[in-house]
Amino acid sequence: MTPFVNRIAAAGIAAMVASIGFAGLADADDNAIKYRQNHMKALAAHMGAISAVMKGEAGKPGHVAGHAAALASIGAMTGDLFPVGSGEGNTDALPAIWAQPGEFEKAWVALKDASANFAKVAAGGDMAATGGAMGAVGKACGGCHKSFRKKQ
Amino acid sequence: MTPFVNRIAAAGIAAMVASIGFAGLADADDNAIKYRQNHMKALAAHMGAISAVMKGEAGKPGHVAGHAAALASIGAMTGDLFPVGSGEGNTDALPAIWAQPGEFEKAWVALKDASANFAKVAAGGDMAATGGAMGAVGKACGGCHKSFRKKQ
Repeated sequence: MTPFVNRIAAAGIAAMVASIGFAGLADADDNAIKYRQNHMKALAAHMGAISAVMKGEAGKPGHVAGHAAALASIGAMTGDLFPVGSGEGNTDALPAIWAQPGEFEKAWVALKDASANFAKVAAGGDMAATGGAMGAVGKACGGCHKSFRKKQ
Repeated sequence: MTPFVNRIAAAGIAAMVASIGFAGLADADDNAIKYRQNHMKALAAHMGAISAVMKGEAGKPGHVAGHAAALASIGAMTGDLFPVGSGEGNTDALPAIWAQPGEFEKAWVALKDASANFAKVAAGGDMAATGGAMGAVGKACGGCHKSFRKKQ
């Protein structure tokens, strides 16, 4: 090839790489958002189920411990759900998550700790204590949403 | 009161009791349906999250075990999610659930067993074996839906 053709080929390859690269990044961000949202959906579903049992509306008292354990699993993962780049797109996550990582860490660790405690208390079967521990999980959810999620 | 007035009063009280009774039952059925749907939403969200990790789209391999444990918790509760009466209303559950309880039990026990095995295998960390065990969970979901859920 002549140098001119070389240059065109190189530019073409660079453009291809760039376009593949951007597409890959955008997909990764979308996937990270969907992944995070699946966790939030699971959290909400488990909380809804627990709430129904605690109010005596449905289910069995023995179900609470299983749901609480699931919440604790999700709580422990929460810090992994906000990779850089996943604040752009179809998400209610606020830029503050990445702008104030220390504050955000406090907020998600509060969920991790509250949900771990809830699972422990619920496994013990004391429904009054379980209700209190569940309240602390709800407070941790709300604490994070207040500062780090778009107003609903 | 005269006997006639007594009779009216008695009829009124009976009607009140009946109406409260029916309202209570309808609410209980609605609550049972909502409760069941929260479990299905949680199942779908956990499966979606696991699938994303297994495909390498998002998350971390270590997340799978937590989601698998959550699925196992829900799998173990599934038999409690279909009380008599909860086939009427805003639900895709088919009458066959209550008409063929033996067949239905086989179907939900298949989910219970497959999800328990999945949790055990996922906790071991062998991703190839985990993928196989996850496939068995999906098969158990599909097996139950095929016979006992309205076509989507």
